[in-house]
Amino acid sequence: MIRNDVSPTDRRFIDLNCDFGESFGAYTFGQDRELLACVTSVNIACGFHAGDPHTIREAADRSVQAGVAIGAHPGLPDRLGFGRREMAVSPQEVYDYTLYQIGALDAFVRAAGGTLRHVKPHGALYHMAGREPELAEAFVRAVRVYDPALILYAQSGSVLLSEAERQGVRGAAEVFADRTYRTDGSLTPRTQPNAVLQSAEEALAQTLDIIASGHVTTSDGTRIALQGDTVCLHGDGLHAALFAARLHQGLIAAGIALRPPHRP
Amino acid sequence: MIRNDVSPTDRRFIDLNCDFGESFGAYTFGQDRELLACVTSVNIACGFHAGDPHTIREAADRSVQAGVAIGAHPGLPDRLGFGRREMAVSPQEVYDYTLYQIGALDAFVRAAGGTLRHVKPHGALYHMAGREPELAEAFVRAVRVYDPALILYAQSGSVLLSEAERQGVRGAAEVFADRTYRTDGSLTPRTQPNAVLQSAEEALAQTLDIIASGHVTTSDGTRIALQGDTVCLHGDGLHAALFAARLHQGLIAAGIALRPPHRP
Amino acid sequence: MIRNDVSPTDRRFIDLNCDFGESFGAYTFGQDRELLACVTSVNIACGFHAGDPHTIREAADRSVQAGVAIGAHPGLPDRLGFGRREMAVSPQEVYDYTLYQIGALDAFVRAAGGTLRHVKPHGALYHMAGREPELAEAFVRAVRVYDPALILYAQSGSVLLSEAERQGVRGAAEVFADRTYRTDGSLTPRTQPNAVLQSAEEALAQTLDIIASGHVTTSDGTRIALQGDTVCLHGDGLHAALFAARLHQGLIAAGIALRPPHRP
Amino acid sequence: MIRNDVSPTDRRFIDLNCDFGESFGAYTFGQDRELLACVTSVNIACGFHAGDPHTIREAADRSVQAGVAIGAHPGLPDRLGFGRREMAVSPQEVYDYTLYQIGALDAFVRAAGGTLRHVKPHGALYHMAGREPELAEAFVRAVRVYDPALILYAQSGSVLLSEAERQGVRGAAEVFADRTYRTDGSLTPRTQPNAVLQSAEEALAQTLDIIASGHVTTSDGTRIALQGDTVCLHGDGLHAALFAARLHQGLIAAGIALRPPHRP
Repeated sequence: MIRNDVSPTDRRFIDLNCDFGESFGAYTFGQDRELLACVTSVNIACGFHAGDPHTIREAADRSVQAGVAIGAHPGLPDRLGFGRREMAVSPQEVYDYTLYQIGALDAFVRAAGGTLRHVKPHGALYHMAGREPELAEAFVRAVRVYDPALILYAQSGSVLLSEAERQGVRGAAEVFADRTYRTDGSLTPRTQPNAVLQSAEEALAQTLDIIASGHVTTSDGTRIALQGDTVCLHGDGLHAALFAARLHQGLIAAGIALRPPHRP
Repeated sequence: MIRNDVSPTDRRFIDLNCDFGESFGAYTFGQDRELLACVTSVNIACGFHAGDPHTIREAADRSVQAGVAIGAHPGLPDRLGFGRREMAVSPQEVYDYTLYQIGALDAFVRAAGGTLRHVKPHGALYHMAGREPELAEAFVRAVRVYDPALILYAQSGSVLLSEAERQGVRGAAEVFADRTYRTDGSLTPRTQPNAVLQSAEEALAQTLDIIASGHVTTSDGTRIALQGDTVCLHGDGLHAALFAARLHQGLIAAGIALRPPHRP
Repeated sequence: MIRNDVSPTDRRFIDLNCDFGESFGAYTFGQDRELLACVTSVNIACGFHAGDPHTIREAADRSVQAGVAIGAHPGLPDRLGFGRREMAVSPQEVYDYTLYQIGALDAFVRAAGGTLRHVKPHGALYHMAGREPELAEAFVRAVRVYDPALILYAQSGSVLLSEAERQGVRGAAEVFADRTYRTDGSLTPRTQPNAVLQSAEEALAQTLDIIASGHVTTSDGTRIALQGDTVCLHGDGLHAALFAARLHQGLIAAGIALRPPHRP
Repeated sequence: MIRNDVSPTDRRFIDLNCDFGESFGAYTFGQDRELLACVTSVNIACGFHAGDPHTIREAADRSVQAGVAIGAHPGLPDRLGFGRREMAVSPQEVYDYTLYQIGALDAFVRAAGGTLRHVKPHGALYHMAGREPELAEAFVRAVRVYDPALILYAQSGSVLLSEAERQGVRGAAEVFADRTYRTDGSLTPRTQPNAVLQSAEEALAQTLDIIASGHVTTSDGTRIALQGDTVCLHGDGLHAALFAARLHQGLIAAGIALRPPHRP
């Protein structure tokens, strides 16, 4: 059985990841430069929900130079919706879209002298494949067929992670620094008032708690187990860069080493 | 110095190639099934001018099963124009588009258990990169960066082939069975009445002449040297399949072996 | 109150409609020429799920020449999926997509000297807006804002038709000649064996029954009320043209006049 | 003969126009809000080079509220290149693309209670149709067929303006506040060092000169005639909003009335 390379109770390290290279043509998106200084993993958009061959090349080049772990960030073929709208795609379509995007991205990573290390689905695909076993099976299979040493970044507790384990693909459990959790381990929906932690200090505290205890306090005050191998930092929004910098600095100050998950 | 693997004067073999996998979504295009029985190389559309992840997977699977040599067929990002309209793209854009498409396609070729062997630019990109040194340099560089053992299929006499030789990439000189040539080695434009040979017999005769003599008779009756390593068979049009079958049968009857160019 | 221009019990006329102009660039789709001779209404693709400015112009020109009633056939922005995959679009997006596509199409209809008479949603949008009140409200509003005299073609019994009536937009209830119905008035899903009537004779008989009686016999043998103002003929598939011709001829032979719904 | 509504020698008014609504999906572009306060005409992107149904609706609504003259800004179908790359499109394609985009945009303008007043081609289409008579003929024809009362905004001295006059479409000659001119009336290419006036004061002075004298001083010091009915303000770039505000204020301070061209 594959086991993630961390034990949740005594860990003194974590990975910070962010989405990357989501510009498109004349349009810029996110704060790639600022985030790159704070993270240990990037998920590069592959041209479906965002990104294009030019942005991918630049993102791969910068990521290799920065020495961060590089991942593919495949999304649904919905540029107009930024891959955020669920679509009734079949498992076969999920497989095909994922394999296509990983291959396209990896060409640039290798051209830049780097190595593709992980894959993280984007947006609606992240949620759909994290929830529906047939889509999870197809997504993990595309990752595995491409390279069985790739690591799958997916939401902690999701079907994707158990499917990865089933297929012998190493998973990295993703947690959110600034989102609150419900007792069933899911995120509080954004439609609810307390869905998002407002301050960087709260987010830092929650992240340190997850790392140290392998648990989190839910929005109604219960303690639940929550494994976290990698923390998602958002690159868009007004205070994204400041938030990321604060988290990065706070974790280091607390003696937490920042590093990407090990390859199997 | 790299040399093509054939000497034009005494050759007894040739490659037949056709474009492949150019359907898109609910739209079918060409006569893939019929052509596949006649050719030794296929150029699979990569999703820009035609093709999509689903058609690519199917095309790669069928090609591997058929045992033909598999190539990438990158085109301009103009699906509406099927990649046939010239666009003012920069060398950097040509490089980026080409690398992206090769990588995406190769993921499916490898998943099917095959090996990508060649690359042939499509449509307007074929002509632009065949003519403009800076675009040729960028195209060949993308091919070489991806895999220096890939063979470049390009028009006999084109700038692309000399650029390939300059960069140490093996080239395969493409000739057209059913198009007439002008004295400068270029194709008679389709706007002229004698641009296309109307019968399969004429096309077969021209092809046999090129193979046997390394020369062709131009539309005004002159003889010019013309190297041909691979012959392009068109997959669309009313009689495409019949035409391809006749050429295939006629070449074999004439004792010409059909096989793809050797890898370097 | 707006009433549809037909009374279901003694009607001696019906409209036959088909989707139209669904080609795209180099890709052809359907049997437009053959269908055009059989129908009294066409629904022209508007460039989202299918169609492009060139195909729209040709479709509008031909439709005006043929004297059929012309409708817009807006779809979801999913060309790869031909608009057949449900997407989590908001009511606002449905409104925006619909208004955009109607306006684009109407420019060509007017340029051809014609008049846009109806709108019918395509594929997944047809089903989603036919089922979900908020999407139906947005769709009908876009139609009404563009031109309150437009007629909405939608499935008999659907939410879209009741919403049209609520907003004062004339509706035309669409029935299917070759699909079987369930007791709740919905179509038998295609996953079930008896979903589709196999012969043109059965389809003709069902259509005549609906026209004459305002009822249909469901797949389990019950009789249910079913209003039909317009019958959908499919343009793709092997026997589409023959099927359409038989239905057209059989209805005329039965003394049913073929004509589009009247404008309000 | 159609004459523009201004005499170049004693005019005391001018139109200021800017491109508008060029965001797309999750991507924002330009400084629409700031520019809208400075201009008297907006050219709204129609969904090909930029814009989407959502941005078009918002742009149309804001423009109607602001009381500015509203124009369509059709571009080439090249979102990846923002419509800035020349493509080998045929006159028929230019006609089709233009008519499609005008119709789509106008649906929103009318829904917002406004009236479409002008059309200005975007980017590469602006330059190609401004230079090539067959493309100009097709573009103007699309404008005229849609509504002969529409005004065509095009570069002063361009083929488009003479073609508009020939077809009886009112033209508005566009000049650039911050670009220098050559003796033949063309813009100094951006590849040359003195192509762009660096300060808002220089741009204001040049604009006032054109308005007052109907002439401009070229980059080599000659005086040439230059008719200007409308001045293009750029919406992207670091200082675009400040620049626009300075020009707006400077023109008013100089007693120049700002107003769009009259409809014929």
